[in-house]
Amino acid sequence: MAKRGMLIVLSGPSGVGKGTVRKAIFDQGGNDFQYSISMTTRKPREGEVNGEDYYFVSKEEFEHNIETGQMLEYAKYVDNYYGTPLKYVNETLDRGKDVFLEIEVNGALQVRKRLPEGVFVFLTPPDLMKLKQRIINRGTEDMETINKRMTKAVEEIRMMQDYDFAVVNDKVENAVESIKTIIKSERFRVERVFPEYEEMLGDK
Amino acid sequence: MAKRGMLIVLSGPSGVGKGTVRKAIFDQGGNDFQYSISMTTRKPREGEVNGEDYYFVSKEEFEHNIETGQMLEYAKYVDNYYGTPLKYVNETLDRGKDVFLEIEVNGALQVRKRLPEGVFVFLTPPDLMKLKQRIINRGTEDMETINKRMTKAVEEIRMMQDYDFAVVNDKVENAVESIKTIIKSERFRVERVFPEYEEMLGDK
Repeated sequence: MAKRGMLIVLSGPSGVGKGTVRKAIFDQGGNDFQYSISMTTRKPREGEVNGEDYYFVSKEEFEHNIETGQMLEYAKYVDNYYGTPLKYVNETLDRGKDVFLEIEVNGALQVRKRLPEGVFVFLTPPDLMKLKQRIINRGTEDMETINKRMTKAVEEIRMMQDYDFAVVNDKVENAVESIKTIIKSERFRVERVFPEYEEMLGDK
Repeated sequence: MAKRGMLIVLSGPSGVGKGTVRKAIFDQGGNDFQYSISMTTRKPREGEVNGEDYYFVSKEEFEHNIETGQMLEYAKYVDNYYGTPLKYVNETLDRGKDVFLEIEVNGALQVRKRLPEGVFVFLTPPDLMKLKQRIINRGTEDMETINKRMTKAVEEIRMMQDYDFAVVNDKVENAVESIKTIIKSERFRVERVFPEYEEMLGDK
């Protein structure tokens, strides 16, 4: 039996640039992991291709998938469903290939519960750390703006705790490199390579 | 207070080439982590410099260090002590600098107990995986040789389980790159970056 692949989940607060970073990772090419295409009930936009950008399905089909346990994770935004079909992910992992998901934070929590051995990467807004400076220089910004930012920051920092890694999206190229470094490194995890050695001993 | 540095421990079975890999890492230069120099009671060899290759001390001084809890780890080989002074490691970590140790497997286990948050890398002999092939082609090697290798392999594979990462020392350059990748990646660990964000919130 081939060693099972590794699941990589990229998530982060909305607006942090997850999609841009994911696109940059796959546009670069030469990756030894597969992108898992999401399923949605929203209509394709100009130029979007079924089975490439998304799997475009009807509301009935999506709900049938939910009811029959075929979604690894899903969410509803503005009357449309978005989610990850379980089958492709599992089959790819079983073939020993690594799978890359880029999903919303709620979805990531659902995946963490079902496939806890995955590698969960949280993309952090670059201004989170600068907030401190902003608060110190209180005079320059009104209290309402500062408080709003503070509340959002507290929320985002709490989210981070459910992940293995946190990468700041200061520059897309940097974030891409950091994520690729994490993937490379995680392949050396004893939990991941150990079964191969164990199998070798079992075979003797 | 500065964020505490990360401890990196490189170990592996004797003869695997830990010292060569460690030397290659530091000969390359440009590393943002410090090498912790070992202490020993053995006599300096031709060309070895005190405070560079080792701290060369007397048996009495070393035993005093053990008794007063000043050794992070130590072992005795052929009548000589070898070990890591705790003070340098702790002070460097407290300054926020990462520390790199290259030590024997017994020492690594001692460090794991005292500083479990470290990153423990096991250097694996390149022939461990090839063993399988050797066993399949039994005819080409005598049973005694195969059995000896097998026993050693079982031991080494068991050791691996106490580590976070396993890197095969097939080629020194590859091992060096893999170890550097692991160090870079581990800096993105949520457990490591989270305290900074937490501190920011605490300061508000």
